Amino acid sequence: MVTRRGVVETPVFMPVGTQGTVKGILPESLLELGAEIILGNTYHLFLRPGHELVNRLGGLHKFMNWNGPILTDSGGFQVFSLGDLCSISEEGVTFQSHLDGSRHFLSPEISVAVQRALGADIVMAFDECIPHPSARDYVAASTARSTRWAERCKQAHLTDQGAALFGIVQGGMELDLRTRSAEELLEIGFDGYAIGGLSVGEETGLMYRVMEHTLPLLPVDRPRYVMGVGTPENLVEAVARGVDMFDCVMPTRNARNGLLFTGFGKISIKQAQYREDPAPIDPACSCYVCRNYSRAYLRHLYQSNEILASVLNTHHNLHYYLSLMSGIRRALDEGTFGEYRSEFYRQRGAA
Amino acid sequence: MVTRRGVVETPVFMPVGTQGTVKGILPESLLELGAEIILGNTYHLFLRPGHELVNRLGGLHKFMNWNGPILTDSGGFQVFSLGDLCSISEEGVTFQSHLDGSRHFLSPEISVAVQRALGADIVMAFDECIPHPSARDYVAASTARSTRWAERCKQAHLTDQGAALFGIVQGGMELDLRTRSAEELLEIGFDGYAIGGLSVGEETGLMYRVMEHTLPLLPVDRPRYVMGVGTPENLVEAVARGVDMFDCVMPTRNARNGLLFTGFGKISIKQAQYREDPAPIDPACSCYVCRNYSRAYLRHLYQSNEILASVLNTHHNLHYYLSLMSGIRRALDEGTFGEYRSEFYRQRGAA
Repeated sequence: MVTRRGVVETPVFMPVGTQGTVKGILPESLLELGAEIILGNTYHLFLRPGHELVNRLGGLHKFMNWNGPILTDSGGFQVFSLGDLCSISEEGVTFQSHLDGSRHFLSPEISVAVQRALGADIVMAFDECIPHPSARDYVAASTARSTRWAERCKQAHLTDQGAALFGIVQGGMELDLRTRSAEELLEIGFDGYAIGGLSVGEETGLMYRVMEHTLPLLPVDRPRYVMGVGTPENLVEAVARGVDMFDCVMPTRNARNGLLFTGFGKISIKQAQYREDPAPIDPACSCYVCRNYSRAYLRHLYQSNEILASVLNTHHNLHYYLSLMSGIRRALDEGTFGEYRSEFYRQRGAA
Repeated sequence: MVTRRGVVETPVFMPVGTQGTVKGILPESLLELGAEIILGNTYHLFLRPGHELVNRLGGLHKFMNWNGPILTDSGGFQVFSLGDLCSISEEGVTFQSHLDGSRHFLSPEISVAVQRALGADIVMAFDECIPHPSARDYVAASTARSTRWAERCKQAHLTDQGAALFGIVQGGMELDLRTRSAEELLEIGFDGYAIGGLSVGEETGLMYRVMEHTLPLLPVDRPRYVMGVGTPENLVEAVARGVDMFDCVMPTRNARNGLLFTGFGKISIKQAQYREDPAPIDPACSCYVCRNYSRAYLRHLYQSNEILASVLNTHHNLHYYLSLMSGIRRALDEGTFGEYRSEFYRQRGAA
C-alpha cells in the first residue's frame, strides 16, 4: 500500500495511538518493532488538545514524533461509544465530551476537516458504528445514512492532495445490507475500503461470515481494512479471508492489564504460578523483554503497579502482533500461508 | 570510587530504584544517560517480592537487568517513615508492612543479610533516621544505638568478600553528637561514610551547617555520601563542601508530577502557559526529550494521564541531574568549579 509517507507492507497491523501516543511505547520503539503505520483517534484529539492546536504545532506527526504514515479514524465510533450522545440528525451528531461534559458537533465535513488538520495520511469516512444486536430497520436506516455521509466526506475531501480517503462498509449482520453498502460506496469511489461494525459483541463465527460475504464485494486492488479487530486468531482468519489492514487496542490494553500474548496462547502475568518463574514470557520470543526479563520480575512489576510493567508488557505484546503479521506476510510471499496457519494453531494446542 | 562491579566517577548522583526499577525508565536508558550506580530499597524488596526470591532468581542485578553497581539502603529509613512502627528495642525494630499490615522484624544482622541476598555492591549500616525536630535526649540515645547497630552490621558483614559496607553518621542537628557519631564510626571502620538524617524538614542553612561540621570529620580517601539529598542547588552546595555521593527521588518523583528541571529553574508542565508552546522543555538541553518533543506535547500527555508523560519527564529530569553531576566532575577536574557554581546560579537568576 502506497501512502504519501511511504510504502506499507500488507497485511498490516496498526498500533492504536489514541491520544497522540501509542500508550506506553516510544515512537522509536514502534519503528524498531516494525510498525509501519499507526492509527490516531480523531474524537480524542478533537476534544484534547484540539485539532487546531495540533495543526498550529505542525500536525500530529510532528506533535507526537512519528514520521511514518498515520491513519485517523473518523471519530464516529467514539462519539457513539464514549461520548454522551445528544442527537443524531442527517446533518451530523451532537454529543457531550466524556472528559468535561462540554457539547460538540461532528459531521462528515467536520470530521474530514479535523482529520486533515491533524495531517492524516489516510482519512476515514464519518459513519455510525451500529451496535449489536440492532433491529433490521435501524441497521438499514443507519447504513443508508452512513452512505450519504460517505458521499459528503468524498466531496469534502476532494480538494486534498495526497491524503487517501477510505469508505466504511456498514450493514450490521444483515448480509444484503452489507452488499448494498459496499455497492453504493464503490459507486462513490474510495482509495480503500473498510468493514466497520464488527467485533461489537457478535459471535466470532458470525463475524467471519460477514467478512466472507463482504470481502469479495470489495476490489482486490484497494486496501481492505477490518476495523477494531482483533485477537491473534482473528487476524490469521481474517487474512485467510483477504483482509489487508487491522487495528486494535488489544495488544496495548491487555499489556496494561498484565495479559501477555505468546505463541502458545495468552498468559496472565499476575498469576501466582509466575511468582518465582525465571523463564521469559515466551521462551521462543526474541523481543527485548523476553531477552532480558523473567516472568517473576514482570509479575513483581505488575503487582507493584510500576510504570515499567506497562512499558515492558506493551513492548512484548506489540512485538507479538507485529511479528505475527510479518510472519504472515513472509508466508504469503512464499506461498506457505496454509502451513503457517496450521503451525499457528498447532503451537496453541500444545500449550 | 572502586566497587566490585567497576569504577564510579565521583561526585555521583544515584537514581533511586525503589521496587527493583527506577520508576519510568529502562536500565539501558539509565546507562545512556550516564548513570554509573543506582540505589535499591531494602525495605520495599524485603516486603515484595522478598529478598530470598530475588536471591534465588540470581540477585537484584539480574532480576532488574542492571549490571552496574547497586547500593542498597538498610531499610531503616522506610521502617521509620513508611511502616507502621510497633516497637524499637536494642535488638531491632518490629513493624507492620505498609502494603498489607503483616508484621516483620528488622535488625542490623537481618538488614545486612537482606542486602547481601539482594547482591548489593555497597551495603548500608542499619540505623534510625531521626525525625526533625527531636529532643536532644532522644537524638543522643538514638544515635548511640545506631552506633551500636553499626558495630553489629560490621560484624555481620565481615564474612562478605567484595561488597563494601558504609557507616552512617547520625546525631540530628546536634553538632557535638555528630562529632561523637563520626568518631565512633571511624573507630569501627567502614569502606565509606554517609551522613544520614538530613533533608528531613530542617532549614537549608542548618542542613549545610551540619554538612560543614561533619564532612571534615570523615576521611577524604573514603566516599562521603549525603543520603536523600536533594535539589540541584543542594547538590552544587554539597559538592562545594566535599560530598562525593547523592541519592534522591526528586528527579523521578517530580517528573511524574510534571515538575521539570532546567538550567533556568524548575517548570511545571501542567501550566496553561505551555498549552501551545512549541519549545522544548529546555532549549539548551540536548536530551532525547528536548530534541524531539514540545512543551505543548508534554503538557498534553500530562493532562491526558498518559504513561509517556512519566516516561519522557523522567528521562529529561534524570538527564538533567546526571548532566549536572558530569558538569561538576569536569569542572573539578579542570579546577573551574568556582566558575561552574557561579554560572549555575547566573543561569537561574536569568530565568
